[in-house]
Amino acid sequence: MAGNLFGKIITLKTFGESHGKGIGGILDGIPPGLEIDLDALQKKMDRRRPGQSGITTARSEPDKVELMSGIYNGQTTGMPIGLLIFNKDAKPADYENIKTVFRPSHADYTYSKKYGLRDPSGGGRSSARETALRVAASYFTDLLLEKHGVEIIAYVHSVKHLSLPPDFSIRDSSEVQENEVRCPDPALAAEMKAMIKEAKEEGDTLGGTIGCEVFNCPAGLGEPVFDKLQADLAKAMLSINACKGFEYGSGFQGTLLKGSEHNDEFTSNDDGEITTKTNFSGGIQGGISNGMPIYFKVAFKPVSTLQKKQESVDSEGQKTSLAVKGRHDPCVLPRAVPIVEAMTSLVIADHLLRNNVYTGDQSQT
Amino acid sequence: MAGNLFGKIITLKTFGESHGKGIGGILDGIPPGLEIDLDALQKKMDRRRPGQSGITTARSEPDKVELMSGIYNGQTTGMPIGLLIFNKDAKPADYENIKTVFRPSHADYTYSKKYGLRDPSGGGRSSARETALRVAASYFTDLLLEKHGVEIIAYVHSVKHLSLPPDFSIRDSSEVQENEVRCPDPALAAEMKAMIKEAKEEGDTLGGTIGCEVFNCPAGLGEPVFDKLQADLAKAMLSINACKGFEYGSGFQGTLLKGSEHNDEFTSNDDGEITTKTNFSGGIQGGISNGMPIYFKVAFKPVSTLQKKQESVDSEGQKTSLAVKGRHDPCVLPRAVPIVEAMTSLVIADHLLRNNVYTGDQSQT
Amino acid sequence: MAGNLFGKIITLKTFGESHGKGIGGILDGIPPGLEIDLDALQKKMDRRRPGQSGITTARSEPDKVELMSGIYNGQTTGMPIGLLIFNKDAKPADYENIKTVFRPSHADYTYSKKYGLRDPSGGGRSSARETALRVAASYFTDLLLEKHGVEIIAYVHSVKHLSLPPDFSIRDSSEVQENEVRCPDPALAAEMKAMIKEAKEEGDTLGGTIGCEVFNCPAGLGEPVFDKLQADLAKAMLSINACKGFEYGSGFQGTLLKGSEHNDEFTSNDDGEITTKTNFSGGIQGGISNGMPIYFKVAFKPVSTLQKKQESVDSEGQKTSLAVKGRHDPCVLPRAVPIVEAMTSLVIADHLLRNNVYTGDQSQT
Amino acid sequence: MAGNLFGKIITLKTFGESHGKGIGGILDGIPPGLEIDLDALQKKMDRRRPGQSGITTARSEPDKVELMSGIYNGQTTGMPIGLLIFNKDAKPADYENIKTVFRPSHADYTYSKKYGLRDPSGGGRSSARETALRVAASYFTDLLLEKHGVEIIAYVHSVKHLSLPPDFSIRDSSEVQENEVRCPDPALAAEMKAMIKEAKEEGDTLGGTIGCEVFNCPAGLGEPVFDKLQADLAKAMLSINACKGFEYGSGFQGTLLKGSEHNDEFTSNDDGEITTKTNFSGGIQGGISNGMPIYFKVAFKPVSTLQKKQESVDSEGQKTSLAVKGRHDPCVLPRAVPIVEAMTSLVIADHLLRNNVYTGDQSQT
Repeated sequence: MAGNLFGKIITLKTFGESHGKGIGGILDGIPPGLEIDLDALQKKMDRRRPGQSGITTARSEPDKVELMSGIYNGQTTGMPIGLLIFNKDAKPADYENIKTVFRPSHADYTYSKKYGLRDPSGGGRSSARETALRVAASYFTDLLLEKHGVEIIAYVHSVKHLSLPPDFSIRDSSEVQENEVRCPDPALAAEMKAMIKEAKEEGDTLGGTIGCEVFNCPAGLGEPVFDKLQADLAKAMLSINACKGFEYGSGFQGTLLKGSEHNDEFTSNDDGEITTKTNFSGGIQGGISNGMPIYFKVAFKPVSTLQKKQESVDSEGQKTSLAVKGRHDPCVLPRAVPIVEAMTSLVIADHLLRNNVYTGDQSQT
Repeated sequence: MAGNLFGKIITLKTFGESHGKGIGGILDGIPPGLEIDLDALQKKMDRRRPGQSGITTARSEPDKVELMSGIYNGQTTGMPIGLLIFNKDAKPADYENIKTVFRPSHADYTYSKKYGLRDPSGGGRSSARETALRVAASYFTDLLLEKHGVEIIAYVHSVKHLSLPPDFSIRDSSEVQENEVRCPDPALAAEMKAMIKEAKEEGDTLGGTIGCEVFNCPAGLGEPVFDKLQADLAKAMLSINACKGFEYGSGFQGTLLKGSEHNDEFTSNDDGEITTKTNFSGGIQGGISNGMPIYFKVAFKPVSTLQKKQESVDSEGQKTSLAVKGRHDPCVLPRAVPIVEAMTSLVIADHLLRNNVYTGDQSQT
Repeated sequence: MAGNLFGKIITLKTFGESHGKGIGGILDGIPPGLEIDLDALQKKMDRRRPGQSGITTARSEPDKVELMSGIYNGQTTGMPIGLLIFNKDAKPADYENIKTVFRPSHADYTYSKKYGLRDPSGGGRSSARETALRVAASYFTDLLLEKHGVEIIAYVHSVKHLSLPPDFSIRDSSEVQENEVRCPDPALAAEMKAMIKEAKEEGDTLGGTIGCEVFNCPAGLGEPVFDKLQADLAKAMLSINACKGFEYGSGFQGTLLKGSEHNDEFTSNDDGEITTKTNFSGGIQGGISNGMPIYFKVAFKPVSTLQKKQESVDSEGQKTSLAVKGRHDPCVLPRAVPIVEAMTSLVIADHLLRNNVYTGDQSQT
Repeated sequence: MAGNLFGKIITLKTFGESHGKGIGGILDGIPPGLEIDLDALQKKMDRRRPGQSGITTARSEPDKVELMSGIYNGQTTGMPIGLLIFNKDAKPADYENIKTVFRPSHADYTYSKKYGLRDPSGGGRSSARETALRVAASYFTDLLLEKHGVEIIAYVHSVKHLSLPPDFSIRDSSEVQENEVRCPDPALAAEMKAMIKEAKEEGDTLGGTIGCEVFNCPAGLGEPVFDKLQADLAKAMLSINACKGFEYGSGFQGTLLKGSEHNDEFTSNDDGEITTKTNFSGGIQGGISNGMPIYFKVAFKPVSTLQKKQESVDSEGQKTSLAVKGRHDPCVLPRAVPIVEAMTSLVIADHLLRNNVYTGDQSQT
């Protein structure tokens, strides 16, 4: 009810503030018998952790995840998995000067209005630090998805006006990893990196978009009416800090087509396997996956934390100005890539198990 | 779990197929003491019902809602409200010929894969007929919102390439109602209507976008982390049939701005009331409403039901072709306006009561 | 949140008041492909319906259930099943005189305190009339359980001081059905019937206990910690009107034994099949079924509706007296038997599908 | 879904095994602004912790709770509260010999059947060690209840055949605390203690009952139909390890009374305040609290862990025998008292906030 729980069968519940003792979570509903590799878990964490490159925040957090429970002899047991990350480089003192000032476009004002009090250090609970747990959780859902052959790839599609072609599609995750920006076009990535550096030097920030594609997703995932697969993906994405929009398949551009251009006609191969000739549907029809690749795009605003001086008001409503000292990312896009992948993994794995309710019963009888 | 329930405190659960006996729902969590006006309820239904104009489907359904429970002496009692609508103009025979053929970009194929069997008449449960109950439910949440002064206005922003200006904003709901297309610009509405009629004659269909604005929403609605207000709005919109995308505030366009251009600086008037100078945030910061207008845009694809001949396969995987006979809308946008408003109303009212959990306790002590 | 929803995967949501237009519900999560027999459904309803014998209420309700959705060609489709029962013999006028008087031990006072207003006719929503929908829903869950060989039998164990032996166990459901009291001992049943008739003539009422046994329940149902199988059964039973207590296995009497007497030692047969020598555990260990029979007992208070004159107060707090005219049962036990079975069926079937989440995934890989 | 979450608005989610790294939980939904006293929290923990007296287990756990989040400047912030307890005296090696043997009346067998693998150390997740978190969580819900004047008192009502009078009621919590057994009658407590010691020496165990009373609970808590207050209390109690039964108000004994004897007639004082002359209802009518004291009784079986030799089978179904070496309580009753209080506190506080949904909205308008 208080908004800290995600999922239905596979659920992630998180706690923790940006500059408190640490952050943690409980991942529940993971089936028993999955083999755990702690190095692989940490490698996933490293993709999101702060301080990983010159274009991310200077805060240095190893983000080492302690698995407190739910593992026995290197395997999941079906019990809830306690996730724990202690904060190592917290500096609450950096935020003393904004205790009573509302940073523009942050959660400072709304938290104060809602709760009457707030932890001002780095935004407290509203900080994107919480997303580390989503990435940790996705290590386990990825294990489950791998068993079913599902592969999820996200990448930076645009930073400000620098963009891949609108209809860009990826099929190989390898080169995405190679550059700091996580844009699969190396030349474009270099341009983006230069622009981000420049913004950083100006004390300014940049936004952009992330593309995400899901391959080999089995048909049948998603529920009719309210819990359509795209609805749960949209909620997952819009729950990420700084996210402003979501579109799947043909998206907003698809509104420019006629139905006769937009419909995905079915066809079949010699084995009777059914596919569609086009995929404007983005792999989802009637809220349920159809076996074709799922793809969607997510918009992220320029980061609100600026080192430039801005006008604002304090908690008494008096006008004032501020320049934020705290460390922060000049552009959230590169680090948002693993978060988008993580949330996608949580949604798809949850729906996989939701679908088992039916297939499980059919297989028993 | 099966996807037919929406909301947390105010919840709507629905049942029913397009060409079955009828559709119904249970609206729960509505506070006691709200005065009911059956004519006003029906008027709301009429905005969505089929057969209301020359550019909508020819199916004629009065969509008269029977309130089965939860009302006593003309007031809500706090008990669940049973909603019932009998289907009057169902023609299941129209769908005999597509019992074993999958209509392109419909749910026929995915339902068959997921459940092993399906009701083929008009798409059965996957039909947008179910959304009538969302509109009926919103009559009650609107009553609640009116008590708090909240007003929700949606309108057609574009049909195919015919579009209002990107930064269009409305402040008066009256003219929206006046034309069949529900576009607030009468001249543009006339163009849209002509284009829709032309598409209909060709057996083709059109898509477009809807804008929605929420005025006087109190600050403090929305929950941190996963149940951010924009996340619940996104899920609500993407749960509507044919919806392909959602963006709020500056949306996808906002990714082209720098942080220093995009941040909404706070200011205050002589009474110490706090507002923002700009509203790129779209009235939501850190997932919680800040008292400024909330606005967002929703994309709808061109309707999948075509009278034009299309290629497809049957349930055996054999290639075939089909031309659908069933009645349908050539463009879903005009009738989607009240549905977008309804889902917005359900989300805002639900979060209003979720917030009462805290304010209620503060007021008692 | 408002308390009208039961279950996690198989869910029942209900609406309706005792003397309103009717009652209804939505049963969701029922797997596709179950064959429906409307006569069998109605037969189940007849076991609970009012007016079925001389020792139940005189209100005559056929309780004919209309299936509004979720069925196609005589089979469940996996879609939500709309259940509808119109009230045929409602007499709201009978309750005019108690509009402002609180009947002792009824919900009149507490509903008034909670909601500020209430529907006084027959207790409105607080009436046991609502339980008809639980019985209707159990028709479908029973179909599912039958596929797995599960059988549920409840019976009247005691009425006031007239009781079966404490350790009574049943193995054949046939004779339970034969008498009006639904006590499996015909001689005792005759005594019970005479005592109930006498109480009815005096304008008084009687309570008692119901025993329930579940045979062939698969091992593995139930979840650790909070959703233990016995916890969900306890909640299910205590949600039935007039229920005052629940005990399973050795129950309250088991507290008189030592651990060495009470532990159920494991043994196995020549095929390596594991059972327990005794069954003080009542078929549940650590919250999870172990394959042995599940059994429990439920206490029901004497019905609160009396025709005898009683002291009370009115809504202004003024002392007054009343004698209730409405029709009612002198003893709820016989009609509670199918309700106890229904709630047991809903709990076991829900946990069966919850368990499929794991078994389903194991079977796929 | 996996059974590790309790509550609706105030929710507790827990993780952890008996002999793993530690146990933890997330308590969510606690309103902002409650003042925290860490000493008072620890004092509450000490009432449940192992090793506290000669009649409890010898395992020595300080059960020091670390509050990881949700507190700022000594106050709750409305954010989720991370609870963490490291295990200090875990001895997994003690359980090496029962890795493949099923202890009678434990969860060993059912966990193996359900999950295919299990952590055998002290029962892993099935251990009552998890209940430490329920007690920790109740520190916060008690703070909330104290604001409303609610007081919860539990005590040992019987151990085996040694029992307080059936109609015993308490009004002063002070003497309950004074003795190790937590029975409010000192002479009886001394007898109980002697009997428990004797059982311990024999390697045997004892069961009994706990009484619980709630004073000053406001009228209006509880929801109609499925989430009746007594239904949620029953589920809460039956979710505690070793619990076998629950009865509230007149309970099972109440079935021996006639309606005219059992009904609680209303009366009022000169100020128009309404009470009932008797309280067979146990403070709850129609599932909703009526302002009178709530009282109920809970049965606990004799502990299953015996040092006496018992017959059993191993995971291959081969017959064997075992005598458990692990430390354990000879009688769970004294330590169950704070657990019963904790679960009662969680249920009442949750329903208090659920009720705020309505009262909160009324107060705003």
